Amino acid sequence: MLENRIRNKTLQNKIMSADEAALLIKDGMNVGTSGFTPSGYPKAVPLALAKRVETTGEKIKIGLFTGASVGDELDGSLSRSKIIRKRLPYQTNESLRKYINDGECEYLDMHLSHVPQYAQYGFLGKLDLAIIEAVGITEEGGIIPSTSIGCSPTFIKIAEKVIVEINTSQPLELEGMADIYIPNDPPHRKPIPITKVNDKIGTPYIPCDVNKIAAIVVTDIKDNVRPLAPIDDISKTISGHLIDFLEHEVKVGRLPKTLFPLQSGVGSVANAVLGGLLESSFENLLCYTEVIQDSMLDLLDSGKALFASGTSITPSEEGLIRFKENINFYKDKIILRPQEISNHPEIIRRLGIIAINTAIEADIYGNINSTNIMGTRMMNGIGGSGDFTRNAYISIFTTPSTAKNGDISSIVPMVAHHDHTEHDVMVLITEQGVADLRGLSPKERAKLIINNCAHPTYQPMLKDYFERAQKSKFKHTPHMLSEALSWHDQFIKNGTMKRLP
Amino acid sequence: MLENRIRNKTLQNKIMSADEAALLIKDGMNVGTSGFTPSGYPKAVPLALAKRVETTGEKIKIGLFTGASVGDELDGSLSRSKIIRKRLPYQTNESLRKYINDGECEYLDMHLSHVPQYAQYGFLGKLDLAIIEAVGITEEGGIIPSTSIGCSPTFIKIAEKVIVEINTSQPLELEGMADIYIPNDPPHRKPIPITKVNDKIGTPYIPCDVNKIAAIVVTDIKDNVRPLAPIDDISKTISGHLIDFLEHEVKVGRLPKTLFPLQSGVGSVANAVLGGLLESSFENLLCYTEVIQDSMLDLLDSGKALFASGTSITPSEEGLIRFKENINFYKDKIILRPQEISNHPEIIRRLGIIAINTAIEADIYGNINSTNIMGTRMMNGIGGSGDFTRNAYISIFTTPSTAKNGDISSIVPMVAHHDHTEHDVMVLITEQGVADLRGLSPKERAKLIINNCAHPTYQPMLKDYFERAQKSKFKHTPHMLSEALSWHDQFIKNGTMKRLP
Ligand SMILES: CC(C)(COP(=O)(O)OP(=O)(O)OC[C@H]1O[C@@H](n2cnc3c(N)ncnc32)[C@H](O)[C@@H]1OP(=O)(O)O)[C@@H](O)C(=O)NCCC(=O)NCCS
Ligand SMILES: CC(C)(COP(=O)(O)OP(=O)(O)OC[C@H]1O[C@@H](n2cnc3c(N)ncnc32)[C@H](O)[C@@H]1OP(=O)(O)O)[C@@H](O)C(=O)NCCC(=O)NCCS
Repeated sequence: MLENRIRNKTLQNKIMSADEAALLIKDGMNVGTSGFTPSGYPKAVPLALAKRVETTGEKIKIGLFTGASVGDELDGSLSRSKIIRKRLPYQTNESLRKYINDGECEYLDMHLSHVPQYAQYGFLGKLDLAIIEAVGITEEGGIIPSTSIGCSPTFIKIAEKVIVEINTSQPLELEGMADIYIPNDPPHRKPIPITKVNDKIGTPYIPCDVNKIAAIVVTDIKDNVRPLAPIDDISKTISGHLIDFLEHEVKVGRLPKTLFPLQSGVGSVANAVLGGLLESSFENLLCYTEVIQDSMLDLLDSGKALFASGTSITPSEEGLIRFKENINFYKDKIILRPQEISNHPEIIRRLGIIAINTAIEADIYGNINSTNIMGTRMMNGIGGSGDFTRNAYISIFTTPSTAKNGDISSIVPMVAHHDHTEHDVMVLITEQGVADLRGLSPKERAKLIINNCAHPTYQPMLKDYFERAQKSKFKHTPHMLSEALSWHDQFIKNGTMKRLP
Repeated sequence: MLENRIRNKTLQNKIMSADEAALLIKDGMNVGTSGFTPSGYPKAVPLALAKRVETTGEKIKIGLFTGASVGDELDGSLSRSKIIRKRLPYQTNESLRKYINDGECEYLDMHLSHVPQYAQYGFLGKLDLAIIEAVGITEEGGIIPSTSIGCSPTFIKIAEKVIVEINTSQPLELEGMADIYIPNDPPHRKPIPITKVNDKIGTPYIPCDVNKIAAIVVTDIKDNVRPLAPIDDISKTISGHLIDFLEHEVKVGRLPKTLFPLQSGVGSVANAVLGGLLESSFENLLCYTEVIQDSMLDLLDSGKALFASGTSITPSEEGLIRFKENINFYKDKIILRPQEISNHPEIIRRLGIIAINTAIEADIYGNINSTNIMGTRMMNGIGGSGDFTRNAYISIFTTPSTAKNGDISSIVPMVAHHDHTEHDVMVLITEQGVADLRGLSPKERAKLIINNCAHPTYQPMLKDYFERAQKSKFKHTPHMLSEALSWHDQFIKNGTMKRLP
């Protein structure tokens, strides 16, 4: 069994327990791991490290770099044991989120396409150790990644030592789905030769100097995938508006009937959108995205979508069974790439991606907050939303028009944190409707967003703000700075953005 | 003489006066012109139009699209005559700026690399007319651009009709300096085959269907270039810090001794920076930028720089004489490209550009305002700063630490408008010093920016804000929303950000 997985004989003597491997992690180190939106991340070694620190009371603080979000075995256990000193570039774990917002760890919220190149350029400091989940190691020491690629190729390349977690719960049939390509550094960079979603340009394994492999740990802990919430009515309405918008673009000749390759973000609305496409009239869809979830498998199964390129596959329990049973069907239709490539501006602009991401809030001028609730509390992070939004053919943001039972308006005078600016956002969609911001000035955008996207409860308040702001001396981006963030401030103090009696 | 300039014989009968050509401009049209940071823009036709409207009282309102900023003959005269209804993507003209801030025209402040593709995709509406300054027209009708390329290739491609202004004050020797390449539309886009700053990939003229040429106007009005202010001490100090920073990067091995290709923004600090490089120890520099000014000619003359690629050349009166006298020397060392290429994310990331741009203000977390003074008043626009910053190898912003005789701190708790977010800004430099933000969390950045970049007058106030903000419940991006914009608000009300007695 294991010979299938660890094919390089000289590496057999590197097999050890997770407890032993975890001893390689020392205080002050920077550790880079596999894992993307939580799949394909190492589990046994971080769990062993947390257990040890909790038992011995040893002081270990590390910088933890990943592809994107990882499961509780890694982010949860290491933050509860206060082992994470610095963390980048994205997370969705409840314990870690609390740890960050309590000010206990330094969190860098980075564009996902930037991570590999910053690491490679030496901008993030020395990488001492990489911990990579794999389904196998080739004869030459090449690492066959499991369900995500993320930053693993770069982390393996630059780390001093590598720990491989061979996860036997991950099907070996994943072999062949990865396409590993690492760009040269300037001044030796060449065009990345992808011109179609399904172009393969690299190797099916991650090259690795065998001498760097310091430990191999065999485990069968499953990816701790999050169950997707059932699709609610608001998400369904948003998805309907989005599909109407896309159909209109086809009708006026700005998009072909097959659309252009789709990127779809994370979260419940994003899931509903893919569900909506399943019932739409579009055919022969292509996806060039980050995460491949069950709804994407549905699109492939039904023939609606022909191909999906991503950097991680995150099926549910049920989805994983389906995936394994039909692995040869999917192998022709899915490529997993490093996030440097899945999120690369060069490819995104070349392919003409339609980018669909979820906002926490938007303002009347079209700026988007994706990350900091009330301007201060980190939710997840910007993820790949900036990589895609800035370079897309059409960049779309969706959000329900209210949150917290209507006490929060997701359309505000000024967002309390800016992740995507007015220069980058083309279309905003809520359950109320669509605002197509292309070609519009700030004031034209404000009228459309207030009329089409804001909730009726907050529409009069937004109109009032906008009208009074226009009486100020300077009328390019009319604002009253003393009131611009007062909606948030009032929510913090009184628990509602509604006008107080 | 003119046969040299208008080589296609069939076009001779299209020659007419500016007054006659201006009659082609009708109310409601969208008009795209040549011109970039003010050079190479049409002059005679807009002047004729403005004169007519002022004489006849005719109502003409147009959408005016350009490459970037243009001279007073175009932006100034058309805004004083209230002819501009909508304007994009960048401007620096005083009359137009007032017209925008008075709310008399809708201004779209766009990333320069986005303009050609949005226009081409139909996102900006129909383009009725292109007005292009040229030094000549080839036998086949190809238009030989003058001192800027900007969006001219795309505007010519998509406009229904084209007016060519042959400007005899522009040297015909410019022929051969342009390299015109227009990417296909998705799904037929290919890699843009530039891997070196001096790669030529296109034609020296802009292809144009001769039947579209509706008028040719001959003029000799000179580019209305702005004289550069003499370099002041603060700019010199900033330039010194920047060069120290770059030297340090070379020393630690993160940059080669020749650096990587430089992009340098507009304004007085940007000018000082190029001047500083002239006296630095760096050799064999390359520039991949937008505007080539006198200081760039100095770098080429001295042999410090080997090559400069841009989209416009804006020499002073004196510079133009030097340029003409040594045209063959410069022809080997300068390429002018369409702004879609000079500012393309694909090329910027591939070449590993060092991007240096000027901010109006920065905040303690590293966000940058480049456009809206006090959040509401448009200065110029984002220009190419976002195209370069987001995709650079290293992205640097410079700003004096104070403005308006010290009554404004350019380092504030929260910028009043966001153009470049915390995710994109790597290094901030004021005359006080350098903050290298790479790899730092928001709180780490705040400490460094306050300590290294803020003016001593404002340091205690910023520290006080930051310390009190950290006492709030959520500590990822500590802010007190009721105070975050209060510095600006106080300046508007009392004319100073200083603590009031
Ligand atoms: C924005 C994002 C958090 C939305 O996710 P989602 O699952 O659709 O959102 P939810 O409706 O469950 O909201 C998440 C939380 O934010 C809160 N929230 C939503 N809108 C809010 C608003 N306007 N103000 C304050 N809080 C808000 C919700 O109440 C909820 O809080 P809770 O966890 O305390 O209940 C998510 O899409 C994201 O992280 N985006 C950024 C990264 C990204 O776009 N990635 C895509 C490419 S990687
Ligand atoms: C930011 C920018 C305006 C600075 O230009 P500059 O010539 O170096 O700046 P100046 O010091 O002359 O300042 C310009 C004005 O802004 C004002 N200003 C500067 N800093 C300010 C601040 N923090 N708050 C308020 N006003 C400020 C100045 O007082 C001056 O006003 P005035 O015209 O009323 O005197 C300019 O670089 C720009 O337009 N940048 C954005 C586009 C860009 O980066 N392009 C590069 C690639 S195209």
